Amino acid sequence: MTNQQCNTSRIAGVQFTLYPMSDNFVDIILSALDEVDQSKVWKETDDVTTCVRGKIVHIFDVTKAIFLHAAKTGEHVAMTGTYSIGCPGDNEADVYMAESDAPANAPQLANAPQRAGCKFAIHPLGREDYMDKIYEQIDLSKARGVDVSAAHYMTRLDGDVQAIFDAMEDAFEAVQQEVSHTTMTFTISANSPSNQ
Amino acid sequence: MTNQQCNTSRIAGVQFTLYPMSDNFVDIILSALDEVDQSKVWKETDDVTTCVRGKIVHIFDVTKAIFLHAAKTGEHVAMTGTYSIGCPGDNEADVYMAESDAPANAPQLANAPQRAGCKFAIHPLGREDYMDKIYEQIDLSKARGVDVSAAHYMTRLDGDVQAIFDAMEDAFEAVQQEVSHTTMTFTISANSPSNQ
Ligand SMILES: [Ca+2]
Repeated sequence: MTNQQCNTSRIAGVQFTLYPMSDNFVDIILSALDEVDQSKVWKETDDVTTCVRGKIVHIFDVTKAIFLHAAKTGEHVAMTGTYSIGCPGDNEADVYMAESDAPANAPQLANAPQRAGCKFAIHPLGREDYMDKIYEQIDLSKARGVDVSAAHYMTRLDGDVQAIFDAMEDAFEAVQQEVSHTTMTFTISANSPSNQ
Repeated sequence: MTNQQCNTSRIAGVQFTLYPMSDNFVDIILSALDEVDQSKVWKETDDVTTCVRGKIVHIFDVTKAIFLHAAKTGEHVAMTGTYSIGCPGDNEADVYMAESDAPANAPQLANAPQRAGCKFAIHPLGREDYMDKIYEQIDLSKARGVDVSAAHYMTRLDGDVQAIFDAMEDAFEAVQQEVSHTTMTFTISANSPSNQ
């Protein structure tokens, strides 16, 4: 396996789960899914995670929108997941790669301010020089208007949900241009009683 | 940075979060933390994640025990996290590396059956031959009495919680012996209304 082979398919994907810390967790999840336009991504759900695949712009658009819809209930909600690109053999959703680049949920999210805290780590695979790529993307995040701080094994971002997801998307986009197989794991939390 | 340098510190760590899908999430989290012996690990908590660091055996013992204590409430609970080892410069908890290898919570967990579903992915960093290492550990999981299936970007494990964590620990242990800097991301879910 070489990085060259990975480049033949640039479909990206994310395995994620939404966690409403509420007795109404089922309704909150179903409502969020109902309100979010997922027409530009391939999707599969089971009892542990949801997998969404397509262009980078759309997998970030969908995850951001689902989190925002859940957070606006005012309940303590979290979302965790792992974005991936360049995984060898990942091409089943090639049909979705023809979708236009316009994020389907951007209009309805235009005025949806919501603060959150997030930790993420980016893992460029199969490269000896991977730490340089990690540091590059941390610098990128600093430029995006979110508060950036270091945590063990992860980088913390605090600010508006959309700015946080945009910073992660920019970091993921930048690193995957240099490293064919890249993953990014994240945990984002809103309305936490420990952070009011 | 070389793999050689990573080997100077073999402290491991995990950034994780427990998610009870219940109005009583605060009590469930605090009770689980209260019942679990964390004396053999370094620990730090904020509103997004908890970080635990020490020997591999202890970070898996603590995360497994916290998840089991929360799951026995019968509520739908999930835990997600990322185990890491070999992260350059990670040595602040060296004092905890002197702890004995006996897992502190094994006795009280001896009879705590609990079914769960889990997805995990292992990411050996800084090596060109990383995919071989991933496949090796997937074979290892198969030998441990949990049901193993493939999911996009991740491997799914179904079975008893202790068998699931043991399989992940064995995989992490095996891969980190070959690849100095390794991370493993996981999501485990119990008592889900979608998996009864
Ligand atoms: Ca209640």
